[in-house]
Amino acid sequence: MATPISFLSDFGHDDEFVGVVHGVIARIAPEVRVIDITHGISRGDVHGGALALTRAVQFMPDGVFLAVVDPGVGTERKAIAARTSVGYFVGPDNGLLAPAVAMVGGADLIVSLEDPRFRLPSEGATFHGRDIFGPAAAVLASGQADITDLGPAMDPDAISPLLIPLAEPPQNGQVKASVLWIDTFGNIQFNISPEDLGQMGLSVGDDVLLSASMTEYRITWGVSYGSVEEGEPVIHVDSHGQIALAVRAGSAAEDFPISVGDPVTLSRPDGGNRIDLKVVPD
Amino acid sequence: MATPISFLSDFGHDDEFVGVVHGVIARIAPEVRVIDITHGISRGDVHGGALALTRAVQFMPDGVFLAVVDPGVGTERKAIAARTSVGYFVGPDNGLLAPAVAMVGGADLIVSLEDPRFRLPSEGATFHGRDIFGPAAAVLASGQADITDLGPAMDPDAISPLLIPLAEPPQNGQVKASVLWIDTFGNIQFNISPEDLGQMGLSVGDDVLLSASMTEYRITWGVSYGSVEEGEPVIHVDSHGQIALAVRAGSAAEDFPISVGDPVTLSRPDGGNRIDLKVVPD
Amino acid sequence: MATPISFLSDFGHDDEFVGVVHGVIARIAPEVRVIDITHGISRGDVHGGALALTRAVQFMPDGVFLAVVDPGVGTERKAIAARTSVGYFVGPDNGLLAPAVAMVGGADLIVSLEDPRFRLPSEGATFHGRDIFGPAAAVLASGQADITDLGPAMDPDAISPLLIPLAEPPQNGQVKASVLWIDTFGNIQFNISPEDLGQMGLSVGDDVLLSASMTEYRITWGVSYGSVEEGEPVIHVDSHGQIALAVRAGSAAEDFPISVGDPVTLSRPDGGNRIDLKVVPD
Repeated sequence: MATPISFLSDFGHDDEFVGVVHGVIARIAPEVRVIDITHGISRGDVHGGALALTRAVQFMPDGVFLAVVDPGVGTERKAIAARTSVGYFVGPDNGLLAPAVAMVGGADLIVSLEDPRFRLPSEGATFHGRDIFGPAAAVLASGQADITDLGPAMDPDAISPLLIPLAEPPQNGQVKASVLWIDTFGNIQFNISPEDLGQMGLSVGDDVLLSASMTEYRITWGVSYGSVEEGEPVIHVDSHGQIALAVRAGSAAEDFPISVGDPVTLSRPDGGNRIDLKVVPD
Repeated sequence: MATPISFLSDFGHDDEFVGVVHGVIARIAPEVRVIDITHGISRGDVHGGALALTRAVQFMPDGVFLAVVDPGVGTERKAIAARTSVGYFVGPDNGLLAPAVAMVGGADLIVSLEDPRFRLPSEGATFHGRDIFGPAAAVLASGQADITDLGPAMDPDAISPLLIPLAEPPQNGQVKASVLWIDTFGNIQFNISPEDLGQMGLSVGDDVLLSASMTEYRITWGVSYGSVEEGEPVIHVDSHGQIALAVRAGSAAEDFPISVGDPVTLSRPDGGNRIDLKVVPD
Repeated sequence: MATPISFLSDFGHDDEFVGVVHGVIARIAPEVRVIDITHGISRGDVHGGALALTRAVQFMPDGVFLAVVDPGVGTERKAIAARTSVGYFVGPDNGLLAPAVAMVGGADLIVSLEDPRFRLPSEGATFHGRDIFGPAAAVLASGQADITDLGPAMDPDAISPLLIPLAEPPQNGQVKASVLWIDTFGNIQFNISPEDLGQMGLSVGDDVLLSASMTEYRITWGVSYGSVEEGEPVIHVDSHGQIALAVRAGSAAEDFPISVGDPVTLSRPDGGNRIDLKVVPD
């Protein structure tokens, strides 16, 4: 039985790239449904694409996950498919798939997409979404081929990993973290959990000191946006269970000079645990 | 039998939000088709979202209308579903649904989406499209639940209304109006009808005086763009039956200093009905 | 049996235009699948839309091709449907469909979409995607009408052509060409083929002199991006078999002052075939 394909890329919507991949899939497997996760990943941003895929994967139907953020297309990097408990992941071997595959429990088989029977013949070598990944996703989703037909198995340890920055464990009432994601609403997500704040003796309703860009901010940890007035910032647990900074009816990205990847420090605001005002990237 | 879901939001396409809501619906109700009306509503623009939904609703198939423009997510505003003659409207109780529901003849039942059986368990409280509205739309579209299962009925009078500015009736050969919408092609729609112009003694082919931003423009009322030369402005009845200002093979938004919500005055160009040059917002 | 509709336009995603056309089709033919090729064509750019449709058509499933880039909506230009070997093309008679129809072998019947039974009644005359083209595509895709039902046959020679600039044949080791397309990744496609370069005695691995904007660049003709270092430019055969300029892990559009439609000259870098440094638009 056919399963859906969930499709993520950095193709954008200015050109016909997304539509052409949909077309290639529809020609091979007309009965397969394709759900677009997003095609708004920044051009070539493998890290951002991997995080978006990881955030999305648990909400998508089991089936095939087709992800293409591929600045190395036309170079030696491999094209791969991985078999997991929720279905197949198809994309370039550049780390894009690694965190999502890890989150669903890892892959029990990874193959290199080399069999020409499941590639479109192409004059160029720069649109693997159309020529390699799309066809592989289509035959896997429709059951026209087994993953072992698509190419030779690879050593799972040979797969490119992707390092997602982990926060250091809280110490002396502070945690050094970094910015994972800033969404279109201007919400700023950190790589720390409510448990990290809890270990520092903080709980909902407390103020938190946020140090970023050599500036210190005192911000309430609220249940949600409604815990503060409009235009006020709030630290809260976001929809992925991560600690995030938001501004009610506003945009934290506009109000705070903070970018993705920036180091930040969160700490208890009481004097006994003064943090350095200067934030030194670790 | 399953009905389609027509989906509108301000989520944009940079993040995976739209895809995740599609995914949640596909997990709950794989057989339900989702048609995206638009996700390009300006961030938090409830008014713009309500107008877009109202313009679109008559052209979409009967079924479920899922609309999420929700600057109040994470506050006390309710999540609602409304039963109407064309199906169900699902979204936040902030006025977003009100004009479209009114246009299709009103709702005979409105419920507050409170039953946890039809919500995704979530750590945060900021992505109700994924956790509350999407699941509610999915079970209504697939018939897995009755609207009365989703939560307690609400007093229809307790629903948040949304005020769409009405033009004053024409007087002395002029009508005070305002700008409802400027589309991506730069067409400027006013909240007046051809009947309003007709009451002022104007008909197609006549010139109309448009006062906006303290400036007066004399513009032909044409059947369509073809009534004027390329680059010339034209007053015409737009595809929603409203009076609009366009520029043939151009953009009225680029040529006229007019924004959404601006007050304008349209009047007869003959001397007997001089209008004030100064436009005073009412 | 129903066939899919592949849909291309310049509607963008800010307004509900794309969604409304999907809605109209779903109301008429609920069983028909609509695949969006792209809606990111620049506003009114018939030439860019025609090229995108031509690039995409061979990858889309047979069925109906609905294309709307229509700066002449509301003027005298006709609305047409063309019958071809891969299905039907529906859109304005402004040249948008012509190159794609030619590429699939031409049309054996073209009709003017005039029968009011297959139009939505509309107060305005400015949204033919919704009122004329969408309904025509829906009835053709679902088989509810024959193309001959939609309106009178037209003389194929009366159809508006679209001129795609052809490069002059290579002479004296150089070829005068122009820029057809710059994609979202910054790749710059020329209207020349690898055969053109071959006729000039060039082969993969050679350097090529590119003259554009009165500047001369010496660039390697590589198999793909991998043939050069990151940040370096490369001439290669792109995914449509055309000669293109790219920058590995970068954007040629950012690094080269070249725009769509610009004249360029490619030549052999050896002295015996010096080209003029000044590029004169032909």
